[in-house]
Amino acid sequence: MSGALNHQVRLAARPVGLPKRSDWQFTETPVPEPRDGEVLAKVLYLSLDPAMRGWMNEGKSYIAPIGIGEVMRAGGVGRVTASKHPGFAVGDHVNGALGAQEYAALPGAQLTKIDPKIAPLPVFLNALGMPGMTAYFGLLDVGEPKAGDTVVISGAAGAVGATVGQIAKIKGCRAVGIAGGPAKCRYLIDELGFDAAIDYKAEDVRKSLRTHCQDGVNIYFDNVGGEILDIVLAQLARRARIVLCGAISQYNNTTPIKGPSNYLSLLVNRARIEGMIVFDYASRFPDAVRDIAGWMAAGKLKSREDIVDGLQTFPETLLKLFSGENFGKLVLRVAEH
Amino acid sequence: MSGALNHQVRLAARPVGLPKRSDWQFTETPVPEPRDGEVLAKVLYLSLDPAMRGWMNEGKSYIAPIGIGEVMRAGGVGRVTASKHPGFAVGDHVNGALGAQEYAALPGAQLTKIDPKIAPLPVFLNALGMPGMTAYFGLLDVGEPKAGDTVVISGAAGAVGATVGQIAKIKGCRAVGIAGGPAKCRYLIDELGFDAAIDYKAEDVRKSLRTHCQDGVNIYFDNVGGEILDIVLAQLARRARIVLCGAISQYNNTTPIKGPSNYLSLLVNRARIEGMIVFDYASRFPDAVRDIAGWMAAGKLKSREDIVDGLQTFPETLLKLFSGENFGKLVLRVAEH
Repeated sequence: MSGALNHQVRLAARPVGLPKRSDWQFTETPVPEPRDGEVLAKVLYLSLDPAMRGWMNEGKSYIAPIGIGEVMRAGGVGRVTASKHPGFAVGDHVNGALGAQEYAALPGAQLTKIDPKIAPLPVFLNALGMPGMTAYFGLLDVGEPKAGDTVVISGAAGAVGATVGQIAKIKGCRAVGIAGGPAKCRYLIDELGFDAAIDYKAEDVRKSLRTHCQDGVNIYFDNVGGEILDIVLAQLARRARIVLCGAISQYNNTTPIKGPSNYLSLLVNRARIEGMIVFDYASRFPDAVRDIAGWMAAGKLKSREDIVDGLQTFPETLLKLFSGENFGKLVLRVAEH
Repeated sequence: MSGALNHQVRLAARPVGLPKRSDWQFTETPVPEPRDGEVLAKVLYLSLDPAMRGWMNEGKSYIAPIGIGEVMRAGGVGRVTASKHPGFAVGDHVNGALGAQEYAALPGAQLTKIDPKIAPLPVFLNALGMPGMTAYFGLLDVGEPKAGDTVVISGAAGAVGATVGQIAKIKGCRAVGIAGGPAKCRYLIDELGFDAAIDYKAEDVRKSLRTHCQDGVNIYFDNVGGEILDIVLAQLARRARIVLCGAISQYNNTTPIKGPSNYLSLLVNRARIEGMIVFDYASRFPDAVRDIAGWMAAGKLKSREDIVDGLQTFPETLLKLFSGENFGKLVLRVAEH
């Protein structure tokens, strides 16, 4: 390995609005040697997530911001090429915060071994990864679905939303997805079994929501914030639960965030809105993986990935999330194997 | 009773902004005779509440709007002057939705008998009435306080807020009140035992909150909404609970309601905001009355009323709630006995 180079994507500047190419820096360093207790992994796939935009900002959040000049934080799956940790052998596949680079040396304790016989590797960044965990615990623990509930999901064709809707169906709920464009809407209904889909780019969301949720919304799984949150607030059922998972419509704002002006609907309807961060459920990830893998094996849950090639495309590929261009979980392929 | 007149205050028009005198109509009708199953009560005290402003608007809410020309809805205590219900005798004192009038004929099933030996009659409109019930169930059921929690209360010198803070102290929490003016703030600390009080009219609430809640806010009992809600959102502790009880700062808006632009703090802090309506807890009111009466008897909880005389002052007296002029639960004395 000595002499080999590790290409990396680093944060060069804190973006204002959408991240530009000049907010990034491309570097080459020697491939590191793992130290005692560490594992060296070759990065195969990286997960690109809306939350990344928040990590690039300064200031306190649920996780420390990425420092200027640091390798961009990114979850990924890789293959072990050297190991000084007894739990990992060369050739093992691992999942962890590998970062936007070709090689990552990390303590074994920060990595999870994965079995590529269960599912293709990118699925470990989707239904069997953080988006799947977010969907599972957000819907089941925070949303508390009951059979017969109407569950509305924004960003429904995205990585989290698609899994939320499918789990809602598995739990006997009605799933109504909001997504952008006819292809995504058809996919929700034809492929994923949603009961209804609303194309926010073409339809009057207020009106369509009224059509599809005649008894009001029992659970709203919110990935987008903004105007759609306000529209749903106005159509809550009694004791509704809003799972606050994200607000992608607001992440690149250069003006103050738009608060939900219909929030007093929470009062009238004795409803709640509650935030969730997936890392809080880490000790229960194995339960969720077991359930989701079981549903996938039984043909009840599908995982779709949108795979883009090349670490050097990282800056542009990330932007697909904010334009809504990606169709399925956005994954960057850094190497084939 | 025949020939006697019943003076009434009726809604004449739906107010825009603060209710004006012309939004009201004063009428005289004969004092009604109770029908079978009904009780005739002479109205002694009426409760004036911020929620009344919402009842005056058209449109769906948690309770039907008051119709134009109808007697203004108001809770009150009265004395039975005639009864055709076996559960009530002349001279009994009762609590119920008597309305803004001198006499009310109501089905006995809609009235609760009260014992004036337990407390002065106006207290049954305060700590032993709806504000007390709201404070009790809002804090204990929705807020879920744990000993050591920091509980912040807006409208803290108001009827609900004062009781919330005192129950928080009884449950081993720190109580930080936000109120308008030095007299109310001194009262919170000196009379009610709050740990700190913030005068929103004179202090930088953001800064004072930081001083008094160094580990963040565990529970925020929100009676006011608006800017203070946003300030508190920015200082939540992990897993904080916001009890959404009211938004008096927004009730007379003629422009759209200001949504809380810091609501994504709920996500970062895995926090929730949840609305509550006191009527949902009606079956458990007796438990709350027993507890609160016990705390009052033990000297642990005080009930303060601001009593104004005369049904004809109803329109102006109601406005004291929105200017923050009242000091203690605002009560209208319609008759002495």
